[in-house]
Amino acid sequence: MQKTITIAVDAMGGDNAPKEIIKGAVLAVQEKRNIKVILVGKEAVIRNELGGYEYDKERIVIINAEENITNNESPVMAIRRKKNSSIVVALNLVKNGEADAFVSAGSTGAVLAGGQLIIGRIKGVERPPLAPIIPTIAGASLLIDCGANVDARPSHLVQFAKMGSIYMENVVGVKNPRVAIVNIGAEEEKGNNLVKETFPLLKNSTDINFIGSIEARDIPYGAADVIVCEAFVGNVILKLYEGLGSALIDKIKEGLMSTTKSKIGALLSKSALKNTLKAFDYSQYGGAPLLGLKGLVVKTHGNSKSNEIRNSILQCVAFSENKINEKIEDNLKDYENNIKKGE
Amino acid sequence: MQKTITIAVDAMGGDNAPKEIIKGAVLAVQEKRNIKVILVGKEAVIRNELGGYEYDKERIVIINAEENITNNESPVMAIRRKKNSSIVVALNLVKNGEADAFVSAGSTGAVLAGGQLIIGRIKGVERPPLAPIIPTIAGASLLIDCGANVDARPSHLVQFAKMGSIYMENVVGVKNPRVAIVNIGAEEEKGNNLVKETFPLLKNSTDINFIGSIEARDIPYGAADVIVCEAFVGNVILKLYEGLGSALIDKIKEGLMSTTKSKIGALLSKSALKNTLKAFDYSQYGGAPLLGLKGLVVKTHGNSKSNEIRNSILQCVAFSENKINEKIEDNLKDYENNIKKGE
Repeated sequence: MQKTITIAVDAMGGDNAPKEIIKGAVLAVQEKRNIKVILVGKEAVIRNELGGYEYDKERIVIINAEENITNNESPVMAIRRKKNSSIVVALNLVKNGEADAFVSAGSTGAVLAGGQLIIGRIKGVERPPLAPIIPTIAGASLLIDCGANVDARPSHLVQFAKMGSIYMENVVGVKNPRVAIVNIGAEEEKGNNLVKETFPLLKNSTDINFIGSIEARDIPYGAADVIVCEAFVGNVILKLYEGLGSALIDKIKEGLMSTTKSKIGALLSKSALKNTLKAFDYSQYGGAPLLGLKGLVVKTHGNSKSNEIRNSILQCVAFSENKINEKIEDNLKDYENNIKKGE
Repeated sequence: MQKTITIAVDAMGGDNAPKEIIKGAVLAVQEKRNIKVILVGKEAVIRNELGGYEYDKERIVIINAEENITNNESPVMAIRRKKNSSIVVALNLVKNGEADAFVSAGSTGAVLAGGQLIIGRIKGVERPPLAPIIPTIAGASLLIDCGANVDARPSHLVQFAKMGSIYMENVVGVKNPRVAIVNIGAEEEKGNNLVKETFPLLKNSTDINFIGSIEARDIPYGAADVIVCEAFVGNVILKLYEGLGSALIDKIKEGLMSTTKSKIGALLSKSALKNTLKAFDYSQYGGAPLLGLKGLVVKTHGNSKSNEIRNSILQCVAFSENKINEKIEDNLKDYENNIKKGE
């Protein structure tokens, strides 16, 4: 019999909470038999919303949390003070082993800070990166790091490359994933100080498939599977990806609606267009894992609908079943041992 | 009578040289009467190509330069060694006052290095930024800096903001341009060390219209007119902008061509789509000026066609007629004086 994976879900986080979050949880337990979901948040609100669904009562339970952390609060302060918030209560469930993973569409800052403060890092991990999957022409790539800790050191980036490779290989199923570092030119001597110092370290890492630098223009074409950068640059890439994608699609819609002829054209091409643009849809990939913690934390978009929540919950199962954290710990231990042995 | 502006053009630079470069020069002199173009490069090749056009022989002249700098050479070395390359010869024309400006679609590194080494900086300018115009839903914004000098200091970014404001106001015609710094959140306390140190300096600069931080997702919507960042981040934004734009348009074309129905739809909506997507076309804005030099240097895309070359030449006229360099020098002088007075 398969092991049951328990996932704590922040029922109060994000723009579409609790409605879409709860719908996503119901969809996930309907999809896979070995999932149990703990919905964390205001019990009365959740119970009322759940009333509209048919589901296995033993596989979705509620744990009450009266407080809520908003996007406008200082994340660290909020985590320390709001002990009864859905984020803090859920993270404690993971810490205490009552849940294997936590999924939230709430405040990114609070989820990142809480993950580190409450669950803590795997031994050997210097900094836990937030690693969203971004859609490309060729499929999808992992962009690591997009977290809140900026001004990274070269050793952080090397760990990101290793953790990202393990994730892409085992959760997303990309064999021997190609790792590249974001740079402003293809040559080894190009880049800022951080990139110049990190490049030879990545080149000498025998346990990753390092292919060199990647220029930002090649990211949408899927030129690498694991795209390594520090969090400031990662954030810029992630947000420009989202912003430019929707700006261009707005412009195209405007164009298609501008004349009678183009409106008829739009009607005829609508379903075909929808199909190809689906490849650039974020929600199918689920949320971004915060890697390197002693438990899994997944941050989904603030505007997540049920489908993204469902996919994020299912992603936790793959993560847990493939023992990603054990693999990360072993990998970093090997690396430390090698350094000690002077290899 | 209007003053004649003389522009040295690198006839050998870029993927489409010399054909498209020479066509662009001819278009520019046909468009405006007070332009004189010096085509720099292999005289026989240029003369042969020019033979196909009707033009005012006194307003397009050729200066021979037998060597060519490629993208694969070290820029600084190439500038020092290839004294008879089109880039070095043309930059010397600007240095000696025989040309007011230089336009090149050749090696970005060589143009940037040569601009600084041969023409030199305006007094007071710490670092000359490369500042391309990027298209947005609302029009266009100046992205400053996208050059080759990474790891900038806060004082550099403050100068970029000032120079960028002068350019947008006087060349592009945006009154009181809104200046923002690229950041990973809207709050003043967010960001990496460089942004945190620069933010209060920009806030206290009374001669610019600083509106605070801009997140990358808001750039395509035109949320600021002058977008300040250091060159590594600027390069990532610029290249992702180009790469993602063309990747999405490829996907849309694929969608439109995927079924018979959608092909008919595409035929009907083609001209309307073309019209709206034109707003996202780079070539209409001309090239990127390298600001803060004692002469104007404009770098156009490596794949520039005649239209972009033409627009880049015309842009030099606006730059020169509006005395941008005098304005930059005055502005920085005022700023230094104020610092000395302790203001």
